[in-house]
Amino acid sequence: MSTLDYDYKIDVIVDKIRDLNAKNIILQFPEGLKSDAVSIANDIEGILDDVNVIIDADPCFGACDLADVKVNRHIDLVVHFAHTPLPIKTDCPVLFVEAHSSADIEAPILDAISSFDDNVKTVGLITTTQHIHKLDEMIKIIEEEGYTVKLDNGMGTSKGQVLGCNFTSIKYLDVDVIVYVGSGDFHALGVKLFTQKPVLLADPFIGKSRQIEEFHDKILRIRFARICKAKEAKSFGIIMSSKKGQLRFDLAIKLKQLIKEHGYEAQILNMDYISPELLLPYKLDAFVMTACPRIAIDDSAMYKKPLLTPQELEIVLGLRQWDDYQMDEIIVHDEQT
Amino acid sequence: MSTLDYDYKIDVIVDKIRDLNAKNIILQFPEGLKSDAVSIANDIEGILDDVNVIIDADPCFGACDLADVKVNRHIDLVVHFAHTPLPIKTDCPVLFVEAHSSADIEAPILDAISSFDDNVKTVGLITTTQHIHKLDEMIKIIEEEGYTVKLDNGMGTSKGQVLGCNFTSIKYLDVDVIVYVGSGDFHALGVKLFTQKPVLLADPFIGKSRQIEEFHDKILRIRFARICKAKEAKSFGIIMSSKKGQLRFDLAIKLKQLIKEHGYEAQILNMDYISPELLLPYKLDAFVMTACPRIAIDDSAMYKKPLLTPQELEIVLGLRQWDDYQMDEIIVHDEQT
Repeated sequence: MSTLDYDYKIDVIVDKIRDLNAKNIILQFPEGLKSDAVSIANDIEGILDDVNVIIDADPCFGACDLADVKVNRHIDLVVHFAHTPLPIKTDCPVLFVEAHSSADIEAPILDAISSFDDNVKTVGLITTTQHIHKLDEMIKIIEEEGYTVKLDNGMGTSKGQVLGCNFTSIKYLDVDVIVYVGSGDFHALGVKLFTQKPVLLADPFIGKSRQIEEFHDKILRIRFARICKAKEAKSFGIIMSSKKGQLRFDLAIKLKQLIKEHGYEAQILNMDYISPELLLPYKLDAFVMTACPRIAIDDSAMYKKPLLTPQELEIVLGLRQWDDYQMDEIIVHDEQT
Repeated sequence: MSTLDYDYKIDVIVDKIRDLNAKNIILQFPEGLKSDAVSIANDIEGILDDVNVIIDADPCFGACDLADVKVNRHIDLVVHFAHTPLPIKTDCPVLFVEAHSSADIEAPILDAISSFDDNVKTVGLITTTQHIHKLDEMIKIIEEEGYTVKLDNGMGTSKGQVLGCNFTSIKYLDVDVIVYVGSGDFHALGVKLFTQKPVLLADPFIGKSRQIEEFHDKILRIRFARICKAKEAKSFGIIMSSKKGQLRFDLAIKLKQLIKEHGYEAQILNMDYISPELLLPYKLDAFVMTACPRIAIDDSAMYKKPLLTPQELEIVLGLRQWDDYQMDEIIVHDEQT
């Protein structure tokens, strides 16, 4: 992506390796950066020729998915690119090399402001890791237009940061409108559902802003259909991930109990990399996702049987009203720091 | 498979759970038995209602691929179905429930004997886990036809047992002919390559025997083509698996060094579940497999770039003659017991 001005910070990595006197290191890239992996590994070995660099070639979707537990503890250091750390205990030292976008944020924010109602006085601001280095610039742009900007740290996130599984930095702000600076509809949808306030998505990659209502309505229609279908289910598979940052062991056990108490059959299915074909062997009518909260929503069309979030299961079981529809989040981790 | 007379031994599992006072157990099935997983889990919970059963839904191809390292040590017991244990240290207790086939072994063995040369006096016997409970019966059938049967324990295998990654029980036997009782050509091919003796495959599922020469010639032609193609490579990816029973860390490091010494570029790629699409992002010309020795041979057609075994790499680098072509094996494990 040309707008991703990615600095691999080889000097920082080399310093860290020297500090730790690390011998074996593993590099972990998100999918979009994997094509640079070989040259980065060569660069490091070009400077430190007594270090064994290993490239982790497994899929990697976030800091929830750390390579610290791999390769049976031969590894002295994980270098994890493009994600910010989560509050998870790690089995070995991990260096996070964040990704920053150089995309302009002024035009989309000004476009968002131009569609504010006249009664807007306070603005809640939120963004993703890629753009968070420009947070002060974002605040300045909005304040210069005469609005008060409010931000929050949330739990397990930094000031103004939103993750696909953590909306705590925006949930409790008392504001008139929310500006989300980022490109994905998913985050804006979560903000909308948690706050029920007007949300404007200021997209730095398009240079404009957009409303989230249409996407919100479309997703809710799909989710309503999945929930209706799941009401016919007699048996449920609760999907659990063994990835440390996605593991919710206690929740999986609790949901299994809950489903059984309602007279249905339930079993827990553990997976590392979640994919639809892995569910095919099981004679179960519907599935509940306790791993990454995005999967049930983003990958919905890939699953033939209903795949629900834990909150959607509560609606199926009559424990939550449809009007109280909420996104799933992972705020506290199984091995929390 | 109707010939797989699989006894899940629920009573043995329940006894083991009680012995260990295990609270959380994970069940691990090979692909062909995964469709029984839900009912087996229900059966166990029907007897022990205070036990949390979890089904491991990740692909599982052997005892090299144990679930003992998953779910961050919440687990008190792994029940692993249909494979025999390898000499690997485990992170928690593991109960192996082996799979036995009820298929008749007499007809295929007699068919194999009928094609022996007149000068055959000694027979090397080898079989797979599925049929090994009938080893005494096999010996008796061959001895009653007037031949001397020879067997060996090998290293990390039981008497007469062959694995796709371990041929030690047949390599050093001084015999005139070898009878392999099993259904897969791969094992017979390995026996042929390691012994250079006549090999007859007595297939219990077909009820007949067959020669392995045609398959042997076909595979060697394919391997020769892959090796020729790899001789044009300027850069190599060494694939390493983080599965405990497939991990060969020292070998991967050694091969990387070896390739570099020959003037080529090399990087190590770590993967859990190996698949061709995971190699697509990397600008490397050929790959060397240090994980399961079967992958390079069995899945050859799925990989666009040459995927070699470590022994084939030696041929590419001029360190081994083509006439000394050998199969890859994993005899000593990274975390050996």
